[in-house]
Amino acid sequence: MADTQMAKAKKGELTPEMEAVALQEGLEPEALMEKVASGRAVIPANVNHRGLTPRGIGEGLRVKVNANIGTSSDQTDLEEELRKLEAALEAGTDTVMDLSTGGDLDQIRRKILERCPLPLGTVPIYQAAIEAAERKGGIIFMTPDDIFKVIERQAQDGVDFMTVHCGVTLASLERLRRQGRITDIVSRGGAFLATWMIYHGKENPLYEQFDRLLEIASRYDVTLSLGDGLRPGSVADATDRPQLQELIFLGELAEEAWEENVQVMIEGPGHVPLDQVAANIQLQKRICKGAPFYVLGPLVTDIASGYDHIACAIGGAIAAYWGADFLCYVTPAEHLRLPTPEDVREGVIATRIAAHAAEVARRRPSAWQRDLEMSQARKALDWDTQIRLSIDPEKARKYREQSPPSTDEVCTMCGKFCAIKLVKDFLKRG
Amino acid sequence: MADTQMAKAKKGELTPEMEAVALQEGLEPEALMEKVASGRAVIPANVNHRGLTPRGIGEGLRVKVNANIGTSSDQTDLEEELRKLEAALEAGTDTVMDLSTGGDLDQIRRKILERCPLPLGTVPIYQAAIEAAERKGGIIFMTPDDIFKVIERQAQDGVDFMTVHCGVTLASLERLRRQGRITDIVSRGGAFLATWMIYHGKENPLYEQFDRLLEIASRYDVTLSLGDGLRPGSVADATDRPQLQELIFLGELAEEAWEENVQVMIEGPGHVPLDQVAANIQLQKRICKGAPFYVLGPLVTDIASGYDHIACAIGGAIAAYWGADFLCYVTPAEHLRLPTPEDVREGVIATRIAAHAAEVARRRPSAWQRDLEMSQARKALDWDTQIRLSIDPEKARKYREQSPPSTDEVCTMCGKFCAIKLVKDFLKRG
Repeated sequence: MADTQMAKAKKGELTPEMEAVALQEGLEPEALMEKVASGRAVIPANVNHRGLTPRGIGEGLRVKVNANIGTSSDQTDLEEELRKLEAALEAGTDTVMDLSTGGDLDQIRRKILERCPLPLGTVPIYQAAIEAAERKGGIIFMTPDDIFKVIERQAQDGVDFMTVHCGVTLASLERLRRQGRITDIVSRGGAFLATWMIYHGKENPLYEQFDRLLEIASRYDVTLSLGDGLRPGSVADATDRPQLQELIFLGELAEEAWEENVQVMIEGPGHVPLDQVAANIQLQKRICKGAPFYVLGPLVTDIASGYDHIACAIGGAIAAYWGADFLCYVTPAEHLRLPTPEDVREGVIATRIAAHAAEVARRRPSAWQRDLEMSQARKALDWDTQIRLSIDPEKARKYREQSPPSTDEVCTMCGKFCAIKLVKDFLKRG
Repeated sequence: MADTQMAKAKKGELTPEMEAVALQEGLEPEALMEKVASGRAVIPANVNHRGLTPRGIGEGLRVKVNANIGTSSDQTDLEEELRKLEAALEAGTDTVMDLSTGGDLDQIRRKILERCPLPLGTVPIYQAAIEAAERKGGIIFMTPDDIFKVIERQAQDGVDFMTVHCGVTLASLERLRRQGRITDIVSRGGAFLATWMIYHGKENPLYEQFDRLLEIASRYDVTLSLGDGLRPGSVADATDRPQLQELIFLGELAEEAWEENVQVMIEGPGHVPLDQVAANIQLQKRICKGAPFYVLGPLVTDIASGYDHIACAIGGAIAAYWGADFLCYVTPAEHLRLPTPEDVREGVIATRIAAHAAEVARRRPSAWQRDLEMSQARKALDWDTQIRLSIDPEKARKYREQSPPSTDEVCTMCGKFCAIKLVKDFLKRG
């Protein structure tokens, strides 16, 4: 049994993964190691994930972007999911999550893992609940053992990080009942567990047997992403008592995980009005003692169906500026259908823009430098460089080529009355 | 000669336009009148614009969205511009600007005005400079009289608001010279004027003869949109000395305009890193004594070519939250080509999402209520209502129809494992 990244970091032992991530980030390996040791950064890297290019997530590291793919009970085509994986990788995602809930879940996950050189995440409760529904006739017939067996199987396959909704406790559900929400529970994992817990009147096995979870996670070095099963599903529900109750439990569990050298991230909302985003980040950082924060959006309005990637980019940029470490994308298909590969691409790019905007605002030298070089190329009317430095050079090139200007120097927006050209020509003459 | 909206407001005389806008906004007409009288809100409504549905812009009013259309020297097709006008109106813009710089400018403007039931804006210096270039062989041969004649002609046609770069003064240009910018001048109007001023060593006619401008504006009740010819064209240039120098002049000119009962807005950046957006709004509101603020973006990164509508939505949402009153859209084509009707549609929707997100964050009752109803419909699995309340019902419907779920209640994202359905069914059983 290998030590986890965190165990090694605590012992002062540099791993190849730490060295690779330090290089990507332009950090001293020792500085990164100290962050991993203290839990303020994670390197999700399952010992069984062969060919992994690791990524670091956390304090002072570049803000990372995750793309969710995966089948549903209505669409179970593995080939389509592999196309989405390709689209996500091409668009520049940092990690991928397989959220499949339809078809042969083991086979789908293994194929995706095989082709995914980046950290892969899953939500094992999906498979446990679905297998109980299919084999035993109902989610309520799922046993704690069923859950831990799926977790073990997925860990053994090489999954790098897992969302586990350990904070959906009986106490959290009581807060939910007394709150009176608009949208109650919108997390699938949260809904599976709450249904089971209410039916049996029993505590969440992922909370009650957290030590069992830690044992598996530490054996494979699976990073636990402590999920927010009670995240708000509407702006009216944001930052309410059940959300905060769950966060308090997640903070406690993060500390327990650190004691066992298990790497941990905390998941956050969800739907949050713009004015509450900063508070949500500050709360998480304080309550969870600096554990990396992984936010799902946040969406700053509920009505952007068809354009939720834009609502997500607004919330994500503000969240990352205030200290969120990891942004889960949302695609234009959110709230409407399973995404297509094109939706995946749009979602990744929108979220990368949000992450980059936050880095620019926080003056990360590499981000600032890229904007600077872009603007210098714009001033020089150097179109090749402008296209190369664009967030999506392929789309930028296509746009320019579809509308060829009369002279190479300008674009068809202003034609010969390009402001930059005017000033440049004028100064040349003077 | 009719009094302007502001003149009437100062006299306590309610106009049909004030009544229409008060009704749209759910305000008492007298409260709106007081805002118009003090300059904190404007109602751009040229006395010659027949069939106008007025819009109010300013303090306490719903944040408005503008769509720029118009030809360039490289693309002069009037029919295409009318298609863009249609696209902007259908997508729910509040105002339109005709920024044409190619073809028969008078004819294009008149056709667009004829078909535009919403306030129409222009930038008259474009036509003055282009006519000088075409008829006299160069922008530098433009005379002050040429400029004012074009302004008069456009005012007579019925243009409701005009961008006039009055703050590009010799003193502002000296600040620009000493600053040492990355992108110097990126405003076309600013570049036309600066070129002329530097060549002749003369003051900006729009500044020097501001009284002449006020006389025309007051005669037709044209709202002056005091343009920022020195707005930053890169995040590195944001909030610098030339930008602020120009803003100071614009603040002084706004007060002069109010003395003559001319309605005024102030234009703002541009490219601004996310962390400086709030300061930019606060500065404008303070320096310009509460005049409505009309921002061009702001774009929170320089590298989003192909997706600048998203960079703009991020900056616009934050700007509107902090008090910007009017958001000029940016389309995916920005920095690459003249937009198509589809680009126009995407730009308007993205900017409407930004404006709405700000309204939600500021708890405007109508905005909050719409999100609430959307989330209640989501909880009820009521898809017709969800689609109707979407920012773009047509796209939402198309997305859902392209991927039909196995049961009407859910969507293909989660299929039968829909969290909302699970909890709903479970509670029904219990």
